[in-house]
Amino acid sequence: MGQNVSIIGSTGSIGQSTLEVIRHNKDRFRVCALACNGNIELMSKQIAEFHPDFVSVYSEESADLLAAELKKNKLSCRILTGESGNIEAASYKKNDIAVISVVGGIGFMPTLAAIESKKKVCLANKETLVCGGSVVMAHAKKYGVRIIPIDSEHSAIWQLLENTDRKNLKRIIITASGGPFRTYDRSKLHEVTIDQALKHPNWNMGAKITIDSATLMNKGLEVIEAMWLFDLPLEKIDVIIHPQSVIHSMIELNDGSILAQLGNADMKLPINYALSYPERLDIDYVKRFDFMSMNKLTFEKPDIEAFPALKYAYDAAKTGGTMPAVMNAANEIAVSHFLKNKIKFTDISEIVLKVMKKHSEELIVSPDINDIIKCDIKARQTAEKLCLAKFGII
Amino acid sequence: MGQNVSIIGSTGSIGQSTLEVIRHNKDRFRVCALACNGNIELMSKQIAEFHPDFVSVYSEESADLLAAELKKNKLSCRILTGESGNIEAASYKKNDIAVISVVGGIGFMPTLAAIESKKKVCLANKETLVCGGSVVMAHAKKYGVRIIPIDSEHSAIWQLLENTDRKNLKRIIITASGGPFRTYDRSKLHEVTIDQALKHPNWNMGAKITIDSATLMNKGLEVIEAMWLFDLPLEKIDVIIHPQSVIHSMIELNDGSILAQLGNADMKLPINYALSYPERLDIDYVKRFDFMSMNKLTFEKPDIEAFPALKYAYDAAKTGGTMPAVMNAANEIAVSHFLKNKIKFTDISEIVLKVMKKHSEELIVSPDINDIIKCDIKARQTAEKLCLAKFGII
Repeated sequence: MGQNVSIIGSTGSIGQSTLEVIRHNKDRFRVCALACNGNIELMSKQIAEFHPDFVSVYSEESADLLAAELKKNKLSCRILTGESGNIEAASYKKNDIAVISVVGGIGFMPTLAAIESKKKVCLANKETLVCGGSVVMAHAKKYGVRIIPIDSEHSAIWQLLENTDRKNLKRIIITASGGPFRTYDRSKLHEVTIDQALKHPNWNMGAKITIDSATLMNKGLEVIEAMWLFDLPLEKIDVIIHPQSVIHSMIELNDGSILAQLGNADMKLPINYALSYPERLDIDYVKRFDFMSMNKLTFEKPDIEAFPALKYAYDAAKTGGTMPAVMNAANEIAVSHFLKNKIKFTDISEIVLKVMKKHSEELIVSPDINDIIKCDIKARQTAEKLCLAKFGII
Repeated sequence: MGQNVSIIGSTGSIGQSTLEVIRHNKDRFRVCALACNGNIELMSKQIAEFHPDFVSVYSEESADLLAAELKKNKLSCRILTGESGNIEAASYKKNDIAVISVVGGIGFMPTLAAIESKKKVCLANKETLVCGGSVVMAHAKKYGVRIIPIDSEHSAIWQLLENTDRKNLKRIIITASGGPFRTYDRSKLHEVTIDQALKHPNWNMGAKITIDSATLMNKGLEVIEAMWLFDLPLEKIDVIIHPQSVIHSMIELNDGSILAQLGNADMKLPINYALSYPERLDIDYVKRFDFMSMNKLTFEKPDIEAFPALKYAYDAAKTGGTMPAVMNAANEIAVSHFLKNKIKFTDISEIVLKVMKKHSEELIVSPDINDIIKCDIKARQTAEKLCLAKFGII
């Protein structure tokens, strides 16, 4: 019988892990649609293994390449393209569960579409809530849809809050690994290379999120995400550095009790939980957590001086309106330039701050989707210019 | 209007902490009866502050002393004595909540009486479940009474299991500080003194339980207690050494998720939880847990070679019947002789083992209360003889 699953972003890290979970639960889940940007080779393999009803790739060019690849392998599958393809996959009528695992603002419209068609939405896309939290959550409420987080931190908090009376909640405590440069001061951070930044100590993730982890912007985005996802005021959201990433997050209650969720740093665990929620499916194909091999858990305060991005995220959340979207857009552009070796590591947060400052004069307090998109585009342009200026082109 | 509370064992460590919790919640709780062994001075003060309807002390002699003390302080209070006094306090008709915080087998009958009169039972007495778990839990089921643990470990597991579907539970993981001799081997343990054994690294508790913590027998008793309290097979109960006592215990679920309860090592927290359950009362008079001051959590396997008492407890639980009661009785006697400097630290577990071996020939598989009491008495006699033999008297 099983449930039908669409994955928007099937060739990325989370997408692949989602397929791994489905691979081990073929009696429970069936892939009905897949969407990716342009990794044709992998998409072709996924089609061969999971036989979706259709797939979507972003460009027409990718669609042609995929068609050729499928023909070569004697496979066939309907191929859609563009944002409409993503939306079609997310809201496909045969679909029960929509996994939104693309990175970036491109996750926004498929998420809304999945909500409108009352899918169970498993969300691994941070930007959707960071940029459009008010719109998305209002939408989810309107259509009676629960958005289940796939992020390990939010999955932890979800599990811990699941049966907690909100009047007893003092705060949530999001843990952060602190990234590879946790012990660096600002001056030492000026010199770090892309290769260094891409080496995350605990998690094996995509490039963008790995850089965000190194700047702590990732944690800032998670704070904003948590604010929307759990309907919490910022004052009730704290961040603590926990370099081992064993405790995925915690909640503190009014009576001094602290509850924590912990386990292996393996995304298959929160994915398995999100897909099977409210049930919990056995996951014996993932190594059990071994306290003896991870027998020292430490905690530190985040160093806001060295990693100001976390502070900027709190500031953006406090300002609200279009500011978080602008911050996120500036960060996306800056990170992409860092990954192309065009700007320094420390330039990333500097550019984010500059774009935010510039936007503060044009802030829209209660934006609709179009306002958010407009501000997002403008912020990207501003960030782009600032990056090029850094690189010495302008 | 508030709930009436009886405390059986009000002058001990847990009793005093319970009164501290009530002191801060006088609108919620009222002390209606107190019972203690013979600490007349403290009982007199407790009467002056909390005005119970009556109190109980163990001996007639103590009752006379207390009456004189009250007269001296121009106080008056009805004074009962003996086990019947404890039972009267626990089952007192005005009483809503019975806190059983005496140490030793003396907690058994008041617990049964509280269950029969359908009180909310807050249990801090290990021996009740260790010795008579089958009887007590059957009784609780019959009268529809839930027994709420006050122990920090069991309180943690209670909180974590509260909303967990049992079919998803892989195991519970009880944490143990490991006591002051955690790093000692067996030969080094031969030489430890009473003073050394009474210095618990994290918890401030009574003498008996502090010695039990040092031998790991305390953890063994907790394993048996958990088995009854949570209706779990022994295979689902693990013990892990966690010297900082920050994580009070954990549960592992079938999907790899581990949930932990943590906080300050302050018994007022689990007492506050037990008294107010199913609510959670603010506890702003206890210092909030500070991750920065306790920023290294470690884990080790228990060293069964050096601390065999833990293994004996698992063995006794596996054997079942009267064996856990016999083990507990032998341990009580051995510890009391160690505290009188009559036997060595390592003699404690040795005597427990000998008494258990002797009893295995006389084991009663499905004992009633009288069987348990008889075996308890005999085990005490056997242990007594073995202690005296160690001391060279026999």
